[in-house]
Amino acid sequence: MYKLVLVRHGESTWNLENRFTGWTDVDLTPTGVEQAKTAGRLLKAEGYEFDVAYTSVLKRAIRTLWHTLDEMDRTWLPVVHSWRLNERHYGALQGLNKADMAKQYGDAQVLVWRRSYDTPPPALEATDPRSERSDIRYAKLPADQVPLTECLKDTVERVIPFWNESMAPAIKAGKRIVVAAHGNSIRALIKYLDNISDDEIVGVNIPNGIPLVYELDADLKPIRHYYLGDAEAAAKAAAAVASQGKA
Amino acid sequence: MYKLVLVRHGESTWNLENRFTGWTDVDLTPTGVEQAKTAGRLLKAEGYEFDVAYTSVLKRAIRTLWHTLDEMDRTWLPVVHSWRLNERHYGALQGLNKADMAKQYGDAQVLVWRRSYDTPPPALEATDPRSERSDIRYAKLPADQVPLTECLKDTVERVIPFWNESMAPAIKAGKRIVVAAHGNSIRALIKYLDNISDDEIVGVNIPNGIPLVYELDADLKPIRHYYLGDAEAAAKAAAAVASQGKA
Repeated sequence: MYKLVLVRHGESTWNLENRFTGWTDVDLTPTGVEQAKTAGRLLKAEGYEFDVAYTSVLKRAIRTLWHTLDEMDRTWLPVVHSWRLNERHYGALQGLNKADMAKQYGDAQVLVWRRSYDTPPPALEATDPRSERSDIRYAKLPADQVPLTECLKDTVERVIPFWNESMAPAIKAGKRIVVAAHGNSIRALIKYLDNISDDEIVGVNIPNGIPLVYELDADLKPIRHYYLGDAEAAAKAAAAVASQGKA
Repeated sequence: MYKLVLVRHGESTWNLENRFTGWTDVDLTPTGVEQAKTAGRLLKAEGYEFDVAYTSVLKRAIRTLWHTLDEMDRTWLPVVHSWRLNERHYGALQGLNKADMAKQYGDAQVLVWRRSYDTPPPALEATDPRSERSDIRYAKLPADQVPLTECLKDTVERVIPFWNESMAPAIKAGKRIVVAAHGNSIRALIKYLDNISDDEIVGVNIPNGIPLVYELDADLKPIRHYYLGDAEAAAKAAAAVASQGKA
């Protein structure tokens, strides 16, 4: 049996301000830093060891990983960064307030933007200063592969190739891996692993900074999954995520 | 022409306490953190960009790298960790105070231990609780490859293969690299690059947290080298390193 540990980054400044973030590279809040450290302490207390860590190219996930590894005294572990583990791109909504948008367009519209499986939010213009197409970290990607918006389906379609080509082979080779990523890149992965339907994934919310453990069989099919630490606190935190888009 | 940037870690707790550190995994002091951040700000101000970062498996170098990359807004760069970039192993001196040792054994003996090219300090016993042979980060190395002491010659002999097999090919492939490492792993590297004699390397001291830039020709032979920022401050800091082992 294999174990895979997924950690959504700690609270970010735009989580706190209730703004759509996507690929915008905002940092953790002091609370987010504490959440990341707590994740590390939990993993250490439970005796988890890892051989390699995966994260995105966004600093809220990277810093979450750093604090987690630091608390585990494992700063020296190899780390793989991939843009494929980035948050879902939120298109023209990036930077806008979720509750403001709900007031303006209604809760239902915002729920569609936040949780529809295959309807992306309005796209950014490629020339919008918010677009990441001129960001040096994506310079090696063909410009048209840098998204201007994404629905979860789009995110699944760029996360799963990375799972299949990098993470799954590493796990099968006996590497114990921890992933510090984002609400929607984690949802994309568990939708695939647990074979969650397009409808049901809408109701799945990932709390910040709580290690989510997947136990996988020899074919990497999930046997069970659970949050480390206080289960009730994890459930409450997930419910809070669900309610963010309400006016 | 290629550029290679070398950064010795910022001040560590045992630099501050004037203790022989070697492979002991001590952390940065607040001053060391500031030095690392300053290094990052200098590199950013001078327009340096990197494609890959190298560091050791010791947290004072790793954290120096993290702060440097953070100040450059380049936390997402790939990082290669190698024990081959670790500080020289200080054997049975690890943890002992440099000035105390100078009082006990004389300045000359301490200078030999600190700077002799081919005389190692007394070895740790493999069973000494200070030995790293049971440290998980070296678990994949054959136990007899985890040193119990090293002279600089030993350090050169494990740094240079890594240079030849990983760093030099990366540079020749056009990767711009930054290395956050240690006084003696950096001395080992520049001894090799600049073809410094066994006698002359004794007088070479590397200050903490100041980026040292090597300009290299197409064959990776040094054209010139210089510290970024205030040259006088760098010279003073190097002189302070030289005087650490005096009673």
